[in-house]
Amino acid sequence: MVKIALDCMGGDFAPGPIVKGAELAVKENIAHVVLLGDEKAIKTHLGTSKDIEILHTNTTVEMHESSSTALRKKKDSSMNKAFELVKAGNADAVVTAGNSGAAMAFAIFTLGRIYSVDRPAIATLHPTVNEGTSVLIDSGGNVDCKPMHLIQFAIMGDAFAKSVIGIKKPRVGLLSNGEEETKGNELTRETNSILKYMDINYIGYVEGTDIYNGKVDVIVSDGFVGNVALKVAEGIADSLNAFFKIKINSSIKNRMGYMFLKDVFQELVRKTDYSEYGGAPLLGVDGICIICHGKSNEKAIKNAIVMAKKFAEKGLNQSIKETISGYQSINRLKEK
Amino acid sequence: MVKIALDCMGGDFAPGPIVKGAELAVKENIAHVVLLGDEKAIKTHLGTSKDIEILHTNTTVEMHESSSTALRKKKDSSMNKAFELVKAGNADAVVTAGNSGAAMAFAIFTLGRIYSVDRPAIATLHPTVNEGTSVLIDSGGNVDCKPMHLIQFAIMGDAFAKSVIGIKKPRVGLLSNGEEETKGNELTRETNSILKYMDINYIGYVEGTDIYNGKVDVIVSDGFVGNVALKVAEGIADSLNAFFKIKINSSIKNRMGYMFLKDVFQELVRKTDYSEYGGAPLLGVDGICIICHGKSNEKAIKNAIVMAKKFAEKGLNQSIKETISGYQSINRLKEK
Repeated sequence: MVKIALDCMGGDFAPGPIVKGAELAVKENIAHVVLLGDEKAIKTHLGTSKDIEILHTNTTVEMHESSSTALRKKKDSSMNKAFELVKAGNADAVVTAGNSGAAMAFAIFTLGRIYSVDRPAIATLHPTVNEGTSVLIDSGGNVDCKPMHLIQFAIMGDAFAKSVIGIKKPRVGLLSNGEEETKGNELTRETNSILKYMDINYIGYVEGTDIYNGKVDVIVSDGFVGNVALKVAEGIADSLNAFFKIKINSSIKNRMGYMFLKDVFQELVRKTDYSEYGGAPLLGVDGICIICHGKSNEKAIKNAIVMAKKFAEKGLNQSIKETISGYQSINRLKEK
Repeated sequence: MVKIALDCMGGDFAPGPIVKGAELAVKENIAHVVLLGDEKAIKTHLGTSKDIEILHTNTTVEMHESSSTALRKKKDSSMNKAFELVKAGNADAVVTAGNSGAAMAFAIFTLGRIYSVDRPAIATLHPTVNEGTSVLIDSGGNVDCKPMHLIQFAIMGDAFAKSVIGIKKPRVGLLSNGEEETKGNELTRETNSILKYMDINYIGYVEGTDIYNGKVDVIVSDGFVGNVALKVAEGIADSLNAFFKIKINSSIKNRMGYMFLKDVFQELVRKTDYSEYGGAPLLGVDGICIICHGKSNEKAIKNAIVMAKKFAEKGLNQSIKETISGYQSINRLKEK
């Protein structure tokens, strides 16, 4: 059975929902889970599942701590100890809802990068109108990218879509401010000119609208733009839920309407709820790591454990390694 | 009465909905409208309002023509003739749903820029949850910006929010991938360090979520990132409408629910419908120009005419000129 190293101290509401999420996963027999963090704090939240393994740690990476400070001072944290478990072969994947910058830093420091990858990147999954899933990479912290970084994101996103989502020939697009080749900025224009000649199903520039319309499977972007796109989507989902809540509670007529449409609203909430996806994989490090939203509830944590298990079983990293090593030209460029 | 120069040949469905929009505006006595374009084509769409002035032009800027080609070859187009009318003082504002890159190019070429502005920028208006309006500048084509450009966008956005929206002390934020000062990319970090010391109500970094949550009035961004943000929002609105349409028509129960909640859905459609706003002003050129969505329907065009009228009456450009000329340091920097 797959074994997950869970950082119980990371997240805005840790350790409560993190521990509860682990309990759910264990009860459903999804995976073995090792809980890392303050043993006493963890035990106050553990219900009946006394058989979950706890690995006590003394320090915690704070949510707004800089990753360089964390790297220097928090090697004994619950977060880094989780990565060490995977590195030593004592767990198959890390799940953390902690400081994502620090998680990225510890993942690189402790697990190391896959050969040929300069910058590991966060891939987020998005529902599309045609019931599919699109992947946005990088949704994380890689700002000021060079074309070579975006090309690596494209290769990793392609391998991810193939091996984990099961799309035979993923359509890979480059996020831009218009579809025409004359659009884009310096970074996207140079990246576009290289991606065109690569052995991936590259469909050219895509726009913000295309993340959800099912036109593209893998959307490549630098982490600054990707993060803005992600947060816009999150903001709209929040505003929308707030809007309906106010309206539905404002009159008896509206509450009646809600009763009829309850299933539809619940489906919408599910579709726009990040906790359904659980978390986002950090691609490019030599081990599996799922980074969860800081506000993760127990369902999100459980689903992140499901995701981590799936990635471990599907050999995600093997697929990325094989794909990226096939691009000899990238290695040659790197060796220059 | 305010006089609007309307480019009838620009837009995906031109001239039909453009001409119809002008008719609506004239019927409601909003403004005088001069219709520019192919007289014969315009007349086939003109209903009873035979008293609308038509200015015949022979050429049209195509939707996907590069702005440099348009500038070189289409000076006699309906689009540029509209700008010439404003330049000559024979109209107060241009409204066009045509190629936005070309509109920007002709606006700069024919109207000229306001002194101290390097790059005119498109400001889009967004509804916020607390019934307010936020301004995203630049939502257009200014890619690869330098800090000085973003600072000019901030000044113009601030003047716009004050003079047109009527906010006394607009909260100005810089769009970034996180709120902390350690976030951002090279461009935002340098811009942030300058904006902090300027005489505007600068609240620091804001995120994609903040465009809709009412936390900020003016969101400053380079045109690449701004455009991606805008299109993500548009994509979600489209997906959402498609989702509800399918669900509501899928069963009698759901249709019943819709009947009860009809007002709520109509309010949502109104809130997410770009045609309610009409268009987006191009700020920084020496004249008023409203750029409309290529897919504009007649309601969008009518509302763009309403917007153009309002800007002309409120002296938008006077306010931008006064504000930007107050920043002597910027002029000094430019003169170096």
